[in-house]
Amino acid sequence: MLVIGEKINASNRAVGEAIFNRNADFIVELARAQDTAGADFIDINAGNGSGEESSGIESMKWLVNTIKAVTEKPLAIDSDNPEIIRAGLSVFNGNLIINSVTAEAVRLNTIGPMAAERNSGLIALAMGGEGIPDNVNERLDACETILNTLTGMGLTEEKVYFDPLVLPVSVNSQQGKVTLDTIREIKTRYPGTNTVVGLSNISYGLPNRKLVNRAFLLMAAQAGLDAAIMDPLDKKMMSMVSIIKLLSGKESSARAYMRAHRSGRIVD
Amino acid sequence: MLVIGEKINASNRAVGEAIFNRNADFIVELARAQDTAGADFIDINAGNGSGEESSGIESMKWLVNTIKAVTEKPLAIDSDNPEIIRAGLSVFNGNLIINSVTAEAVRLNTIGPMAAERNSGLIALAMGGEGIPDNVNERLDACETILNTLTGMGLTEEKVYFDPLVLPVSVNSQQGKVTLDTIREIKTRYPGTNTVVGLSNISYGLPNRKLVNRAFLLMAAQAGLDAAIMDPLDKKMMSMVSIIKLLSGKESSARAYMRAHRSGRIVD
Repeated sequence: MLVIGEKINASNRAVGEAIFNRNADFIVELARAQDTAGADFIDINAGNGSGEESSGIESMKWLVNTIKAVTEKPLAIDSDNPEIIRAGLSVFNGNLIINSVTAEAVRLNTIGPMAAERNSGLIALAMGGEGIPDNVNERLDACETILNTLTGMGLTEEKVYFDPLVLPVSVNSQQGKVTLDTIREIKTRYPGTNTVVGLSNISYGLPNRKLVNRAFLLMAAQAGLDAAIMDPLDKKMMSMVSIIKLLSGKESSARAYMRAHRSGRIVD
Repeated sequence: MLVIGEKINASNRAVGEAIFNRNADFIVELARAQDTAGADFIDINAGNGSGEESSGIESMKWLVNTIKAVTEKPLAIDSDNPEIIRAGLSVFNGNLIINSVTAEAVRLNTIGPMAAERNSGLIALAMGGEGIPDNVNERLDACETILNTLTGMGLTEEKVYFDPLVLPVSVNSQQGKVTLDTIREIKTRYPGTNTVVGLSNISYGLPNRKLVNRAFLLMAAQAGLDAAIMDPLDKKMMSMVSIIKLLSGKESSARAYMRAHRSGRIVD
C-alpha cells in the first residue's frame, strides 16, 4: 500500500496562507513530517492562485522548489489546471505522479501527453464530465476510455493509477460497495494498472469518521487497492498500512511490523 | 456478518469451572450478555468432561438446557466428539449450527448425518486428518471432499459454513494471504455455501493482537467472509461488524450504524 501524503494542499486554510505568504518554514515542516512518517509520495496542491492563472503557476513552482530541497520522496503534482501541472513539472526532474485526469477529452488530451512524455505516474479519476457516476459500470466505462487514450499516447499501464472514486454512504448506502466493486473490477480487467483512492468522503456525515475511514482502507486493500491519498501523520491510519502489508502477504516476515511496533508506530 | 459468540467454552478456565460445578448463574450471565451484545449464535463447548465421555455428554446436556432457557438465539453445538454433539442435539429443538467437521471420513460420516437429519448448519474445517495445510489448494481440496460428502448425505449448500482456517503470520508471513485467498476461492467455487472463521490465531505472537484481529476481520469480510467466531462483548470488534455491514452495502441506509452509535456501541 503506497501512501500519498495529502497535507500540502491549498484548500487547507493554514497551508493556503503559507503558500500565499511564501512561508517556506511551514511548508518544509509539513514535507519533512510526512516524509519521516512514511509517506511514499508527497502531494503538492498549490491551489489556483489569487484570481489569475499566473499566480497559481508561480505558487506551484515555489512549492515544488521548496519541497524538493528537503525530501527525496517522489512528488504528486496535484492540480485541476493543466498549466499549473505543467509548471510543477517544469521545475522537477524526479520521480512523480500527476494528479489527475478524468475521461474528459480536454483534460486527457492536455495532461495525458505530459505524463507520457515524462513517463510519470498519472492518477485517473473514474468519471467523465458529468460528475461522479453512482454505479460501477459507468465508472468502468470512464476507465476504459482513459486507458485506451493514455496507452495510445504511449503511457504504459503500470503508470496509470485509477481512482474508483468515493461517495458518502450516509447519502447512499450502496456507495461503499460501489467503490469496492469498482476497485476489484479495475484490477480484474486491467491487472497491469494501479488503483488509488482518497478515503475520507466515505464517512461524510457520519460519527466516528476516522474509524470508518480506517475500516474502509482495509476493505479496499483486500479489494485490490494499491495506494491511498491520506494523512501520513495519522498514526492510527498508518498502523493500518503496516497491518495491511503484514496480512496481505506483502512482507517476507513480521519484522517490519515488529519494528513499527517498537518505534511506537502501531497505535490502537 | 454473523457473529458466533465464543465465550461459553470449557477451555476457558472460569467457564470450565462453572461447568464442572454446575454454576448456572455464571453460564446464564455469559449467554445473556452475548445475546444482548448482538451475537447471532451462542457457541456452546462443554469440553470433554473429566475423563469419561459420559461426563462430557452430561455437561453438554446441562449447558444446552441452561442456556436455551434464557436466550432465543440459535446455538452452535461445539465439540470434537460426535457423541457429545449428539447429546447437545438431543436436548435442543431450535435453530442451530454444529461445530464442526473436517474432511476426515470418521468425522464426516458420524457428524454429517446428524446435520443432514436436522437440516442444521454445519461448520466444516478446510483440513483433513494431517493437520492444517499451509497452502490454499490443499484447503480447497478438503472443502471439495467435504461438500461432495455432505451434499451426498442430503445437506444443502447453504447449510455448510466452511472455515478456511487461520495460522499465525508471526510464524509464516503468507498465512494471512492464504486464509484470505481461501475464503475468496470458496465463495467463487461454491457461492451457495458460507464461510466462517475464528480470528485470533492470526495475531498469535504479535503485539497489538486485538488491533490485528480487527483488521483481519475487515479484510476477510471483503474477501467474502459470512460469519466470525468471536467475542461479542469486545465492543471494538463489534463496531467493526457494524461498519462492515455499512460499507459492504448490506444495509439500505446508515440508520443501523447511527443507532449503534447513539447507544454507545461504536467504539474507536
